[in-house]
Amino acid sequence: MITTRVDLNERQLAELKALVDGRLSTSESVLEQHGHDESAAVPGRPSAVVMVNNVEEVSKVLAYCNKELIPVVAFGAGTSLEGHVVPLYGGISLDLSNMNKIIEIRPDDLLVRVEAGVQRNALNDKLANHGLFFSVDPGADATLGGMAATCAAGTTTVRYGTMRENVMALTAVLADGTIIRTGRETRKQSAGYDLTRLLVGSEGTLAVITEITLRVFGIPEKMAAAVVCFPSLADGVLAATTIVRTGIPIARCEFLDAKSIRNLNAYDHMTLSELPTLFFEFHGSPTGVEEDAQAVKEIIEEFNGSEFKWTTDEGERRKLWHARHNAHWANFAANPGKRGLSTDMAVPISRLAEAVDVAMRILDQHPYEYSVLGHVADGNFHCAIMSDPLKPEELIEVRHITHEITLEIIEMGGTCTGEHGIGSGKITALVEETGQAAVDVMRGIKLSMDPHWILNPGKVMSN
Amino acid sequence: MITTRVDLNERQLAELKALVDGRLSTSESVLEQHGHDESAAVPGRPSAVVMVNNVEEVSKVLAYCNKELIPVVAFGAGTSLEGHVVPLYGGISLDLSNMNKIIEIRPDDLLVRVEAGVQRNALNDKLANHGLFFSVDPGADATLGGMAATCAAGTTTVRYGTMRENVMALTAVLADGTIIRTGRETRKQSAGYDLTRLLVGSEGTLAVITEITLRVFGIPEKMAAAVVCFPSLADGVLAATTIVRTGIPIARCEFLDAKSIRNLNAYDHMTLSELPTLFFEFHGSPTGVEEDAQAVKEIIEEFNGSEFKWTTDEGERRKLWHARHNAHWANFAANPGKRGLSTDMAVPISRLAEAVDVAMRILDQHPYEYSVLGHVADGNFHCAIMSDPLKPEELIEVRHITHEITLEIIEMGGTCTGEHGIGSGKITALVEETGQAAVDVMRGIKLSMDPHWILNPGKVMSN
Repeated sequence: MITTRVDLNERQLAELKALVDGRLSTSESVLEQHGHDESAAVPGRPSAVVMVNNVEEVSKVLAYCNKELIPVVAFGAGTSLEGHVVPLYGGISLDLSNMNKIIEIRPDDLLVRVEAGVQRNALNDKLANHGLFFSVDPGADATLGGMAATCAAGTTTVRYGTMRENVMALTAVLADGTIIRTGRETRKQSAGYDLTRLLVGSEGTLAVITEITLRVFGIPEKMAAAVVCFPSLADGVLAATTIVRTGIPIARCEFLDAKSIRNLNAYDHMTLSELPTLFFEFHGSPTGVEEDAQAVKEIIEEFNGSEFKWTTDEGERRKLWHARHNAHWANFAANPGKRGLSTDMAVPISRLAEAVDVAMRILDQHPYEYSVLGHVADGNFHCAIMSDPLKPEELIEVRHITHEITLEIIEMGGTCTGEHGIGSGKITALVEETGQAAVDVMRGIKLSMDPHWILNPGKVMSN
Repeated sequence: MITTRVDLNERQLAELKALVDGRLSTSESVLEQHGHDESAAVPGRPSAVVMVNNVEEVSKVLAYCNKELIPVVAFGAGTSLEGHVVPLYGGISLDLSNMNKIIEIRPDDLLVRVEAGVQRNALNDKLANHGLFFSVDPGADATLGGMAATCAAGTTTVRYGTMRENVMALTAVLADGTIIRTGRETRKQSAGYDLTRLLVGSEGTLAVITEITLRVFGIPEKMAAAVVCFPSLADGVLAATTIVRTGIPIARCEFLDAKSIRNLNAYDHMTLSELPTLFFEFHGSPTGVEEDAQAVKEIIEEFNGSEFKWTTDEGERRKLWHARHNAHWANFAANPGKRGLSTDMAVPISRLAEAVDVAMRILDQHPYEYSVLGHVADGNFHCAIMSDPLKPEELIEVRHITHEITLEIIEMGGTCTGEHGIGSGKITALVEETGQAAVDVMRGIKLSMDPHWILNPGKVMSN
């Protein structure tokens, strides 16, 4: 069991280096780059970074690290918001970004096979040539391996699902170097335990994912986006939840509070009204989109929403969603020198207005700047809370505050994380949410698959 | 580890009986009823049947059986097609049919909480009062616990998904009696390992499911069904796969060969043309249904399909699907005294025509009557193969034949089971499909959760 920091000795560095044709680095800048992600988590340093080019190398490296009790943290694009790639116990950062081959695009089966290091935008660029797209859209240009490992979701979940629903099959390497294949290229499978879904969301603690078969969709005949503002945050949230309950097949429905809109306007040179706002997107046939939009408009009027501002032009539509994805960075830009922690709670949709209220009531009792946005159609919302990285006690206090909110959210039937994962910051929250007995089952599974606990120690569960 | 048949002694019978207020039976008719399901599997006999009324009783019974090394097979409605409920090693059959309470219907959150013994039709009757329906429809009036345990699917998967996508949360009891809760009532959750999806499809070998939170849908504004015949089986299958690839959001698309139609006509007094046939269903707004149907019609013409025979009348629509669900029984009725084994292979949709061809080519080399039907939109098809129960060597030969087909299907990227599960008949096929390394991971998980292997021994994996 890994319990203290592991620094590789000269022999280990040399032996590992030989396994990957010399692609091992201990240069300070490389270690630094692999020691942090986009979260507020305190950065760390791996002892070495190993670049792998194929599954056989991953297998050899893991078998070696397992024998030598060297911690291994898989690294893709470093876009985690929960500190997943921070090597809390040293060891190696296993960089899969060279494994960026799109192996096969199969339009007839609406599926694609990719290496784990392929990034989302590169995949969508290639798919567009076939009239296809990959739906899961967390904003960041993450790797597909990282997205699978955290069970990422994002703006289109309401219509197309999360990684859980869109990963069909995996190749993965166990701690001891064994290569396994899970799932099939079929729409349905009922053959044995669902190891695919076990690995999706396991945050690199059970195996290293090296190849992924993903479900893709045909690009809809028509896509149209619209922006609507509301006099109050509660109105906007209630309008969104009502729309979801009616079953209108919206493709996206995103909420931003007035502060997020103000920051976006400044960051992206937009001219949106600085009010609580919903961004919508509709996919379908021209008449289908028209019908869906009309049904949404009627509900919006009930909740004092503004007129629809349509962006049917493709360039405008892309710009709008680009801006939405920039909200994270816009909040940083508005708070220079600050570090943002993003909460990720989700509740049953009927409790969403109340949940946002709870979060704001608690946050308003403290001096930290925050803004609220979220995937309201899924009952999932984020509070971006700013603290001073030069005053570490602030981050500690912010974590206490978010834990206080989390406990109320769990009480409401909610979860501490809808799409970012547990990482190292919500280990206690996971126990509060699912109970010690279920966490003990997870621990048993972990021990059966990674008995020396070398894979991403300090994440999901305490060692 | 359970390796031989376990018959309970008088002390054990008395002690177990005391745990459940006397609801233990050893009467021959009760043992017989709990020794078989709707599969071709050779029936067995439990040593006793224990009726449980609540999760606490399940917990007490399992803790006792774990201590005494008594095998436990959970029993719901006995509708498995893979011998799941056959107690291969004696012990007890744990009957959950008394646990048939619909605990909570939450229209605002589009979810429902049920005890594991609730049956599908009873749930849908109750949901209809709220304008809701539960989508997963395997035909049989199975319990929701059984459907979760086998990862059941059925006719509506193409639109609404399988149990995997529709189970949100579970309460389950581990072999040692520990009660765990998995998942949440939220649309998204990324909190720790996905124990919900691990238990869905685990066939009663990892835990006994006692309560299920399910996703439900609003009853569509309009539902319309249509029947189309084709001059050849290949035309019908190719038409269906083309429709799926275009992304038309059909709600159901079922294929039946000429023999299945003939049997249905005889069994259900229908007057369908005795040709390869597709049954369709469309869900949506009136214009949406019209648009989808028009798009489907155009494709059907390309593949020499007949005119659409519409059944917009609600009674007629129900009658059509009732008939489809009767296909299983109609095939029996047409082969009096015979026992039917249903295959359950699925392939990537582009290989479906070829896969059906492979199956028929192999089956045609043997004297056993068979018919073909399936959920073609999912690439999943069933061959119902008849054998004589008085000649057990016939069933053994049929299993050899289906294994031969399975090997070719796996070669094509397919699975040995799309929705029925592994049970005891496909243990070797599972290894062929996913590889020994992945099965070893499953074995490790099994041992971590059920170290004495008391839960449904002899299913999914060999002991």
